Amino acid sequence: MSIDTLKAEIADGYGTPAVVIDLDRVERNIARVQQLCDAAGVANRPHIKTHKSPVLAKLQTAAGAKGITCQKLGEAEVMVAEGLDDILISYNLLGTEKVGRLGRLLQRASMTVAADNPTVIGGLPQAADIAGRQLGVVIECDTGRKRAGVETPGEAVALARAIKERPSLRFEGFLFYPTEHSWPQTQRFYDEALEGVRALGLEPRIVSTGGTPNLPNVGNLKGATEHRAGTYIFNDRMMLDCGAATLADCALSVYATVVSRAAPERGILDSGSKTLTADTGALNDGFGLILEYPQAKIHAFAEEHGFLDLSRSNARPGVGEVVRVIPNHVCVVVNMVDRMIAVRSDKIVDVLPVAARGRLV
Amino acid sequence: MSIDTLKAEIADGYGTPAVVIDLDRVERNIARVQQLCDAAGVANRPHIKTHKSPVLAKLQTAAGAKGITCQKLGEAEVMVAEGLDDILISYNLLGTEKVGRLGRLLQRASMTVAADNPTVIGGLPQAADIAGRQLGVVIECDTGRKRAGVETPGEAVALARAIKERPSLRFEGFLFYPTEHSWPQTQRFYDEALEGVRALGLEPRIVSTGGTPNLPNVGNLKGATEHRAGTYIFNDRMMLDCGAATLADCALSVYATVVSRAAPERGILDSGSKTLTADTGALNDGFGLILEYPQAKIHAFAEEHGFLDLSRSNARPGVGEVVRVIPNHVCVVVNMVDRMIAVRSDKIVDVLPVAARGRLV
Repeated sequence: MSIDTLKAEIADGYGTPAVVIDLDRVERNIARVQQLCDAAGVANRPHIKTHKSPVLAKLQTAAGAKGITCQKLGEAEVMVAEGLDDILISYNLLGTEKVGRLGRLLQRASMTVAADNPTVIGGLPQAADIAGRQLGVVIECDTGRKRAGVETPGEAVALARAIKERPSLRFEGFLFYPTEHSWPQTQRFYDEALEGVRALGLEPRIVSTGGTPNLPNVGNLKGATEHRAGTYIFNDRMMLDCGAATLADCALSVYATVVSRAAPERGILDSGSKTLTADTGALNDGFGLILEYPQAKIHAFAEEHGFLDLSRSNARPGVGEVVRVIPNHVCVVVNMVDRMIAVRSDKIVDVLPVAARGRLV
Repeated sequence: MSIDTLKAEIADGYGTPAVVIDLDRVERNIARVQQLCDAAGVANRPHIKTHKSPVLAKLQTAAGAKGITCQKLGEAEVMVAEGLDDILISYNLLGTEKVGRLGRLLQRASMTVAADNPTVIGGLPQAADIAGRQLGVVIECDTGRKRAGVETPGEAVALARAIKERPSLRFEGFLFYPTEHSWPQTQRFYDEALEGVRALGLEPRIVSTGGTPNLPNVGNLKGATEHRAGTYIFNDRMMLDCGAATLADCALSVYATVVSRAAPERGILDSGSKTLTADTGALNDGFGLILEYPQAKIHAFAEEHGFLDLSRSNARPGVGEVVRVIPNHVCVVVNMVDRMIAVRSDKIVDVLPVAARGRLV
């Protein structure tokens, strides 16, 4: 089928804006990263925050992923309900509501959670008590991102001791998310922390690195056991920008319609900040790449309006034309919608619910 | 009940992040804007894109609103299903999928839609044919925002003629969204367009202005018949910034938990770009106002992490503390969640579904 026919089928059958994924590309991306991890001798634990779809998570585990990574309980609940197991929640969970839900999840699946402070570790035994089994905990370590994570190996070892002191918790290892330049620092951090926990009689079973832009570095941390990448399944303009993907690797696009052309050099797409999101992805060149008009720029948003600057584009779309937009940051775009239209060879083959969307907590 | 008790009830009962609305404030905001429109002799047609809740839309119509404004079909469908009527969709609708849905809506409710080009007008009779009744059309006119809308009165008159030529369409009038400084220009545009359509034997029944920041100008356009404002029902940091609201008018906050404090001058909130959104609201001072720590700055986001800069704040929250965040732009935050927790006097009284969320098209 031709792309024009597909565009018409999507616009007429589903309406725009529509989030469309190419399953052939999805499968190629899954296979490539699995091979990359296999070659590095590191397990693959993809981050499902990108797609939030149990169907796609199962494609990842079927291809060889050891388990999955979630960023929040709601995602993990949806995945466990659909039969996924061996789940790492790479986030500090605290408070009775969350710990209770974690306990109920632990009754049904193998769960590991991250912690970077004593308050979080102090609350986790309650989850293990609910489940009647040990809960695995990895210590989140910061090596330059300044997000979550202890800043020193000494703090990491102190938290490992706090885990060891609680019989219902099991020390599982370390969670890292190196920046582009912090791999040597991460190695030093890990080596020192490893020495420290061994002095406590502990041995890490999980040493996790993360990030799609870090895929070329998978295995560079000596001692790493697994990697968690998310964006690679679809890729986006950020991944194009940092060289982690080519256009042929971009598996998700937003089909949008030009709804207004009030002046020669500008227009309006029916995809605004409630679709493509205001996330710039740290790119300073508009929001999204329009495949048909790469010189056009989505320079601003209203909630349902994408403001098109066509001044640099010789070819210009008319009102009613459907275009495909590669978003700057795909993970936040998937989170806006309840379904993804799945295609192969420009033919619609499925509609996948974004099952874990809207699970805010 | 105390705010600390409320925070604990929300965190323990619902988990954070949670979107919480104060119904007393909502009702005060609704009453204030209704009075303002009444005093100006202009009908009130609130924009429901802010709250997406039929329950709140009915509070607005019960207080005197003439009808409601929607930005997309999915919103209108949810509102009509719950019994709302007299709906303006302030957006160019085109394509057989959308026109078909518009026709089915028109069977059930009084609908008016906007148009700013002949392609859109050419498609609309199909909706009227489905419904077997006339469809009202207002001409969207641009006076400086450079979004949608014809740029000249001459174009507006030409579109009015195109509407008149189609017996299934009914010319309803003009849709404006003046910028802060374009009210005089809007008056000139309107006066000239009015003269033009009268020469065609047409008389506008709707002359609509829009925007919460424009509320002080309601009635300033001579000939205006109604105003559509959305944000005023909740308000946000943008409205604080432009003087359209005080802190006491802010009816929505995001309850968030501090989950990490890896260093003295920084921390992490459990609300990132998938909750508060990356929409800056054109404010260059972080994302959201933390009521308890107004000197703290949410300076960056990951998807589930809000990066706290505490360097300017003498008081600093500990891990586990729940804080309330007034978002920069409230309309896009409501769109992220499936429910709003409603409180009065710091007591939970209801949970409102964001019924029209996720209706992408």
